[in-house]
Amino acid sequence: MTLEFEIINRYFKKNTNVPLGIGDDAALINKNKREFWAISQDTLNNDTHFSSNTPPVELGWKALAVNVSDIYAMGGKPNYALLSISLNQHNEKWLKGFSQGLHACAKKYGVEIIGGDTTRGATSISITIIGSVFKKNVLKRDAAKVEDDIWVTGKIGLAAIGLDCVKKKIAMKDGLKKTFIEYLNKPQPSNIYSLQAKKLFHSAIDISDGLIADLSHILKSSGVSAEIFSNQLPVHPWTKKNEAYHYALYGGDDYQLILTAAQKNRSQIELLAKQEKIKLTCIGKITNGKKLKVFDTHGIPLKNLNKGFLHFDK
Amino acid sequence: MTLEFEIINRYFKKNTNVPLGIGDDAALINKNKREFWAISQDTLNNDTHFSSNTPPVELGWKALAVNVSDIYAMGGKPNYALLSISLNQHNEKWLKGFSQGLHACAKKYGVEIIGGDTTRGATSISITIIGSVFKKNVLKRDAAKVEDDIWVTGKIGLAAIGLDCVKKKIAMKDGLKKTFIEYLNKPQPSNIYSLQAKKLFHSAIDISDGLIADLSHILKSSGVSAEIFSNQLPVHPWTKKNEAYHYALYGGDDYQLILTAAQKNRSQIELLAKQEKIKLTCIGKITNGKKLKVFDTHGIPLKNLNKGFLHFDK
Repeated sequence: MTLEFEIINRYFKKNTNVPLGIGDDAALINKNKREFWAISQDTLNNDTHFSSNTPPVELGWKALAVNVSDIYAMGGKPNYALLSISLNQHNEKWLKGFSQGLHACAKKYGVEIIGGDTTRGATSISITIIGSVFKKNVLKRDAAKVEDDIWVTGKIGLAAIGLDCVKKKIAMKDGLKKTFIEYLNKPQPSNIYSLQAKKLFHSAIDISDGLIADLSHILKSSGVSAEIFSNQLPVHPWTKKNEAYHYALYGGDDYQLILTAAQKNRSQIELLAKQEKIKLTCIGKITNGKKLKVFDTHGIPLKNLNKGFLHFDK
Repeated sequence: MTLEFEIINRYFKKNTNVPLGIGDDAALINKNKREFWAISQDTLNNDTHFSSNTPPVELGWKALAVNVSDIYAMGGKPNYALLSISLNQHNEKWLKGFSQGLHACAKKYGVEIIGGDTTRGATSISITIIGSVFKKNVLKRDAAKVEDDIWVTGKIGLAAIGLDCVKKKIAMKDGLKKTFIEYLNKPQPSNIYSLQAKKLFHSAIDISDGLIADLSHILKSSGVSAEIFSNQLPVHPWTKKNEAYHYALYGGDDYQLILTAAQKNRSQIELLAKQEKIKLTCIGKITNGKKLKVFDTHGIPLKNLNKGFLHFDK
């Protein structure tokens, strides 16, 4: 969202004495000689990020998972979370489901819930996450280098297909629909912490607003451009079959990571990813060009790309 | 709010490995040998904590001040804050005012804004605050001791009078009204950090829900009771004149502190408070009784107190 960055930069960014303030996936404060604390806060609102139909158990999962994703995007490991829930009424069933999903996600990603607060108001969940990151392994948006490979974790565009299924904009078999909606409601951030220990990557961001939108933050911060190859994108077979690559390019809510790394690390990254069972796909490279280029599956550059690009990043 | 504590305890509290998890004004994690980080998150919602008429500059102040108050209530010093704003529309004037108030409060209390996030949704502000507290100076709710003096900072009940002015439930001169509404919209937490450095107090909580409601959390957690003397309460002359002590006993939103301390520290506390220009008033004492007793200005125990008490703390 351009709006978000404009607002934050215009009204809330000030010089600080911390190692990293406003403007990345998380802020950094000193932990000890070797580590930072990475801290991030994300809010999910009714009718914006979820609907009244979203099962609470999945909402509980997602509210924490989107924050876990921010810590991974800094090269860190999540430790603690604080939770602030606004609710219009005490709904036992909803709370039970929500807390189940939240604690399941906390267990999977090794997070302890250390603070909580409930207030009356339109349904909204705001979570603060605190993680630790080794200073030498910090992944910021501004460190992509020309010739870097661009990698993404997991599969992308599936959550956006799920959203269109929920909105009944596309039709498909129930089983498939269920799969996509699960990607939307129950994102599974990829833990690259163990890979990161080898200091393999230069920069990272998580995909919340879409591949192009989020990649563009890396490009802008790093003063570089990129080439992306649609036929290399890790998409679902349905996307390929329907040539619906726009979901992978522009769809949000994946909570996978975009990473950049020197080409010389390629084989080591592939080996470690295999060992750690993390899906990592090279989708293009960083260039010193002026415009982001995205090639379609026939190798032809997409023409209307910059519109979409500008929409997010003017 | 009983509701809040019930929800948090029932659905979100789990055993953790941190020094202090859910259940106090802030959570504590290790900072170094001598200090903890104290972390707290508070949310203000439209129509619950403020109205569309609340001036944004005052809302920006208040949103941060209520969090500063939580750190003081732990005996700590606020350092950093992260901000998450939900807005239905981009309102330049509102944002400008809000950020002015926020930064003014940040400056006064020495807080750096290190993270920010805006999302679309019903107007809501959620702030996470991070402060440092010396391990030997931590003030928890569960450490009040029988015979302790009970102190409060500042003046109490003024915000609640302000709220009734806003709601047009009471009438008074415009100048006076303005004063009370300013207490409501622009709380001024008292910085007891320098006093605390001397390790003078046993326990503390901030007054968000009202003196009786918040004191009751200390009493319950510490397994003690208390006697409070209405004629000792630091109230506004209007309150005295109108014998409207219920505002001081039950009114919320003061964001002053309730503290307990050994009687032997009384003169040292009074001396330091004077040096540091902090208003501190002794309003009663901790007892080993079973019931909280509040004496009216004629020295007669209030009869219907336990109803109110139970309402908050059953």
